Amino acid sequence: MKASVTAHRTYTVSRIDDRVYGAFLEHLGRAVYEGIYEPTHPTADANGMRGDVANLVRELDVPFVRYPGGNFVSAYNWEDGIGPKEDRPTRLDLAWHTSESNEVGIHEFADWAESVGTDMMLALNLGTRGIQEARDFVEYVNHPGGSAWSDLRKKNGRADPWNVKLWCLGNEMDGPWQVGHKTAYEYGRLANETAKAVRAFDRNLELIVCGSSHANMPTYPEWERTVLEETYDEIDHVSLHMYFRNPEKNTADYLALNQKLDDYIGTVASTIRYVKSKKRSKKDVTICFDEWNVWYHSNQQDREILDGANGWPHAPGLLEDIYNFEDVLQVGCVLNTFIRNADTVKLAAIAQLVNVIAPIMTEKGGRAWRQTIFWPFWFASRYGRGTALHLVTDGPGYDCAHGDNVPFVDVSGVHDEAAGTVTLFVVNRSQTDTIELDTRLAGFGKLRVETHKMIRHDDLEAVNTADRPDEVAPQDGTGASLDGEHLTCPLPALSYHVIRLRA
Amino acid sequence: MKASVTAHRTYTVSRIDDRVYGAFLEHLGRAVYEGIYEPTHPTADANGMRGDVANLVRELDVPFVRYPGGNFVSAYNWEDGIGPKEDRPTRLDLAWHTSESNEVGIHEFADWAESVGTDMMLALNLGTRGIQEARDFVEYVNHPGGSAWSDLRKKNGRADPWNVKLWCLGNEMDGPWQVGHKTAYEYGRLANETAKAVRAFDRNLELIVCGSSHANMPTYPEWERTVLEETYDEIDHVSLHMYFRNPEKNTADYLALNQKLDDYIGTVASTIRYVKSKKRSKKDVTICFDEWNVWYHSNQQDREILDGANGWPHAPGLLEDIYNFEDVLQVGCVLNTFIRNADTVKLAAIAQLVNVIAPIMTEKGGRAWRQTIFWPFWFASRYGRGTALHLVTDGPGYDCAHGDNVPFVDVSGVHDEAAGTVTLFVVNRSQTDTIELDTRLAGFGKLRVETHKMIRHDDLEAVNTADRPDEVAPQDGTGASLDGEHLTCPLPALSYHVIRLRA
Amino acid sequence: MKASVTAHRTYTVSRIDDRVYGAFLEHLGRAVYEGIYEPTHPTADANGMRGDVANLVRELDVPFVRYPGGNFVSAYNWEDGIGPKEDRPTRLDLAWHTSESNEVGIHEFADWAESVGTDMMLALNLGTRGIQEARDFVEYVNHPGGSAWSDLRKKNGRADPWNVKLWCLGNEMDGPWQVGHKTAYEYGRLANETAKAVRAFDRNLELIVCGSSHANMPTYPEWERTVLEETYDEIDHVSLHMYFRNPEKNTADYLALNQKLDDYIGTVASTIRYVKSKKRSKKDVTICFDEWNVWYHSNQQDREILDGANGWPHAPGLLEDIYNFEDVLQVGCVLNTFIRNADTVKLAAIAQLVNVIAPIMTEKGGRAWRQTIFWPFWFASRYGRGTALHLVTDGPGYDCAHGDNVPFVDVSGVHDEAAGTVTLFVVNRSQTDTIELDTRLAGFGKLRVETHKMIRHDDLEAVNTADRPDEVAPQDGTGASLDGEHLTCPLPALSYHVIRLRA
Repeated sequence: MKASVTAHRTYTVSRIDDRVYGAFLEHLGRAVYEGIYEPTHPTADANGMRGDVANLVRELDVPFVRYPGGNFVSAYNWEDGIGPKEDRPTRLDLAWHTSESNEVGIHEFADWAESVGTDMMLALNLGTRGIQEARDFVEYVNHPGGSAWSDLRKKNGRADPWNVKLWCLGNEMDGPWQVGHKTAYEYGRLANETAKAVRAFDRNLELIVCGSSHANMPTYPEWERTVLEETYDEIDHVSLHMYFRNPEKNTADYLALNQKLDDYIGTVASTIRYVKSKKRSKKDVTICFDEWNVWYHSNQQDREILDGANGWPHAPGLLEDIYNFEDVLQVGCVLNTFIRNADTVKLAAIAQLVNVIAPIMTEKGGRAWRQTIFWPFWFASRYGRGTALHLVTDGPGYDCAHGDNVPFVDVSGVHDEAAGTVTLFVVNRSQTDTIELDTRLAGFGKLRVETHKMIRHDDLEAVNTADRPDEVAPQDGTGASLDGEHLTCPLPALSYHVIRLRA
Repeated sequence: MKASVTAHRTYTVSRIDDRVYGAFLEHLGRAVYEGIYEPTHPTADANGMRGDVANLVRELDVPFVRYPGGNFVSAYNWEDGIGPKEDRPTRLDLAWHTSESNEVGIHEFADWAESVGTDMMLALNLGTRGIQEARDFVEYVNHPGGSAWSDLRKKNGRADPWNVKLWCLGNEMDGPWQVGHKTAYEYGRLANETAKAVRAFDRNLELIVCGSSHANMPTYPEWERTVLEETYDEIDHVSLHMYFRNPEKNTADYLALNQKLDDYIGTVASTIRYVKSKKRSKKDVTICFDEWNVWYHSNQQDREILDGANGWPHAPGLLEDIYNFEDVLQVGCVLNTFIRNADTVKLAAIAQLVNVIAPIMTEKGGRAWRQTIFWPFWFASRYGRGTALHLVTDGPGYDCAHGDNVPFVDVSGVHDEAAGTVTLFVVNRSQTDTIELDTRLAGFGKLRVETHKMIRHDDLEAVNTADRPDEVAPQDGTGASLDGEHLTCPLPALSYHVIRLRA
Repeated sequence: MKASVTAHRTYTVSRIDDRVYGAFLEHLGRAVYEGIYEPTHPTADANGMRGDVANLVRELDVPFVRYPGGNFVSAYNWEDGIGPKEDRPTRLDLAWHTSESNEVGIHEFADWAESVGTDMMLALNLGTRGIQEARDFVEYVNHPGGSAWSDLRKKNGRADPWNVKLWCLGNEMDGPWQVGHKTAYEYGRLANETAKAVRAFDRNLELIVCGSSHANMPTYPEWERTVLEETYDEIDHVSLHMYFRNPEKNTADYLALNQKLDDYIGTVASTIRYVKSKKRSKKDVTICFDEWNVWYHSNQQDREILDGANGWPHAPGLLEDIYNFEDVLQVGCVLNTFIRNADTVKLAAIAQLVNVIAPIMTEKGGRAWRQTIFWPFWFASRYGRGTALHLVTDGPGYDCAHGDNVPFVDVSGVHDEAAGTVTLFVVNRSQTDTIELDTRLAGFGKLRVETHKMIRHDDLEAVNTADRPDEVAPQDGTGASLDGEHLTCPLPALSYHVIRLRA
């Protein structure tokens, strides 16, 4: 079988916003505590931040980290996390049924973000709080000084403002599980007034309004329409979330889930366009896909904790999905989908970064390692910057729950003019057949194959562990062959590929 | 004249929830101050709680006491009532135009409740406050420790959580007089989100949502429908209130008011059923009739205080209805109505307990005594536990403002299988005639008349005072005669009876 | 040309409420700081209040001053302005993009108001706050003592309550620019519940609800209808605002703007009447025109400050309109309009009092002087008290953007029975012609011309400055002649007149 791909330098989707490779870190489970922060760890720095984890985060080169939630934020008081640590209150977090010591707050997170070279995206609590507390937080974080809140920040050890540009107006406010859940209209009104208030500090903030928590929400996509009608002029991005699951071990269906993702993005982009027209607005609003990942491996064990069976533990092992090789293929397809929608998806965040449904895992007091899904994210973050190419593809497909004739080969292409590279990210979803990739590359001049990396494993369920951290890892690919503008490469069944060409 | 009653062991309404004999205590007038609390009183204990009042409360054996309001709660900050007494603020209570010293708060009330052997039903302020303060209060009261609020409770002297199960989501939120009055939709939304937040601490809380303040509210029963549609899945009981008045001294109309009560209960039960079906819910919601009593004797004097003529007094003599013999009959009929509706009315609270429209009265520094209505409540609380019998009745009636052919004889029957008793509570509303009670008791085996008590007085307006505390009191009844399954008893005009049979 | 006017003692509009001559003072620009307050000024009193400014305010004899905003109030926390000055926080004011030191708060303002002999009208923050903070503020200001808030006022140096009667329920809540902007329904609900709560302290408070910010608002006059339907029973006055501009230097159009003002007042009065009928209410609601003035001269320079180009300055020179002679005529026409609508406009406030679009200007550390518009306000405040006469006028007019046949002569008449005076306020809007005023005065008995003052200048753009403070000032008028009941007076083109007759 053969899958043909045509790429032409002039036919592009859009410049890819680097911020599509962001990540998410919530006060949830062991993401913060025993994740990025563990003062007693051998690699901990003066602030108690694990050096081994920081190094792995640096490898992923994420342009921003979203913080501190997630559901957590909807009852979070940011003031709990400032000032002397011994004075900070222990809170019970209703979202995850755990205790929050507040040892890590905005200062600790900000220092860590600086140390790993990433920006902050901060979320405001619009569950139990409103305009006043939001404006105070923005003032604390972004105002140079001379006001009560900014001077308190200085007193707490940070002289310069952090100048955070990305602010989330709450989190998943369409979800009945959210503390202070709101109707679309209630939320739209609150988000709009909060947006105006915080924007008074800085007109150039990028404000992110909550879209639907997932495409199966009963309120989707009316939620988006209503919220946007109330907020359009004041916000910049719509937040979407999607998690991918394979509880019934149906690989064909599972690996086709990005068809639904693509439809979700397209529907919301269309809704944005509709409201833009209705508002006679000249402003564009784009999508911030700030939670996405595979999430289902840990469902069973999580339930016990969330049901409160263990009381209110601090930093329990919640949402600790152990990813397998199959998930590599899924994550590859998801990232391909974002690249193909680079005109509408301008920001995204893998959920999450450490321990909690995360590419990086840690042992308390011990090792940190890369999960299987670390790798497709690493490749995309490293090589997926530039301009998304509008590829025309043709090839065999299969019928499944999520569509007819879903192509076996899922591919995206990125042209980095500055570097002089063209990169193809390719997944072969076929469970049985090697498929020949047959690509025509037009307008890029003379190229050579610089890199061909592949991820493949005989066992779909193979995982990386502390003891076997490289069980699933990239290897050199074979067979990529370039003849003028004609690139061919055999794609073994169930394999992930990065093929990088350079002038 | 003769009134026939048929009782059959198998034909029952429902098990009576003991909590139908609850009571209400509000920070209002002299209910708390000079009521349960008076440090300088000769009988005061170490906490300043009057021993004489506590003893009378113990006599009534109320399973729970609702606290701290009522209208009071809708602008109440529970934190005002914790910590060292000398630091507690004096507040002006807008609901009752009085000053509140906050000498009694949750700790003092909880200790008192334990000492008199009753549970607490606590009300949350949904007038001026919202989710955050509600969750904090529940955490303070119910969380074992290890969090800021629960540790503060410990610091304030209470190590163990109180584990309060019954929580009211505000009070009479349909009433324009309520501070922070809300529309049905506004309230339903707030109650639902607050319910979810506090339930995160404990899924087994029993949450009580506000129904109509009375059946004459212009919003009744649309209020119930709307509120239940917004909250059904998150709440357990609907709160109803009703007060009975005879300002025009029309005994016939007055004593028939429980016809309206019965219709009120039936309508709300039907509304609950409608919403249950609409929601496709499997869960039952029942009625919590948490304010009921006679209230009108004090209206004139109250008006002066509420109009602010005296400024903002602390613990003025507000709502100090002095009850007469006629009110005994009314209270008897009301309690009969609750027993007959034992399938839907699962909780109720007489409003209130001490001094304020209350069965127990006190003198400052002096005596405490039982008002006339103490007695029918005492009998029901003592003998009215078990299973409510579905009685079939037939007999003469009268036409009045509240219905045609209202039966002269109002009766309820309770079967206590464990104790082996059958108890009849009977009121003869006829102002002129002795009526012969003619009862067939089937399926209970051989019984004997263990007790027959009667309350009667020649003067409908007779009252109990500190000097004549037993002017209206139970006396032995006469004439109850059992012949096999056939019980007969003459019921003098305007009399209240308890007839207890034992196997 | 001749303009005839008929006045008859019996044909009156209404008693003029003295409070139509109120003023407004906001924490904005240099109104407070360097306006009324400047501790280092040579004339400053012990409280730091400028004596020269206070004297000029006393000249204007304003019955009340509205405080502290305006847009400022919608994110203002009144507690920031009490207690030791060194402990008061510096806040960033989102409305005017400035820093607020809180050196002046309610105590300082109240002392100043007492010293200049005016009452306070205080505004409540209904932007970011609600019922609780409003009730606390009213308690702090008006409660004699014995409660936490009132005792704190005493501790802060003020033993007696201030007994403020006039309270604004927020400011311009229909404006999207307002922090915490609300829909008409949202605002109506909040205003109603807040009104009820604060009225519990004192039923005689006069509460002012926000109407439309101006007659060009897209929500006008539906805003008024909706808000009044939600609040009618609980409020006393509807707040309206209007500013007058002549950016295109079209004098004819500019001086006819009070035609729009008149229509605005009439429309809102009619809307009030409609809601009154719909509510079957016996209560009257009137208009509080609590912001009005010329405002456009400073627009250009203001924009820079409001755009944040200078950061967040403290007390920048915002809204410092320098008024010219043309504005004297405008202000004269506006005041005439209020007098002619004395039956519906019961309160009004010139916006503002010092420096910010104000009749009084100051130099930092230096001089204070009267702007041109000081004078028509001074005359109206001094001579415009009594009963508004229902004048019948006839005379030549002109067509312009705001109406056809707008009369050249704009006139109002006031009868002060106690003083035995009749006063005419007259503006000749003709740019070319002297017009002969031809007045018939019936029923006032024998009168004499006591005073005839005129304001006129050859240059419409003439202004008063610190160096030339009397460039535009009243002068003696000439030509007023009374023959029995027949008063005649030549009115030069573009001139303002006060003619006072006495028995």
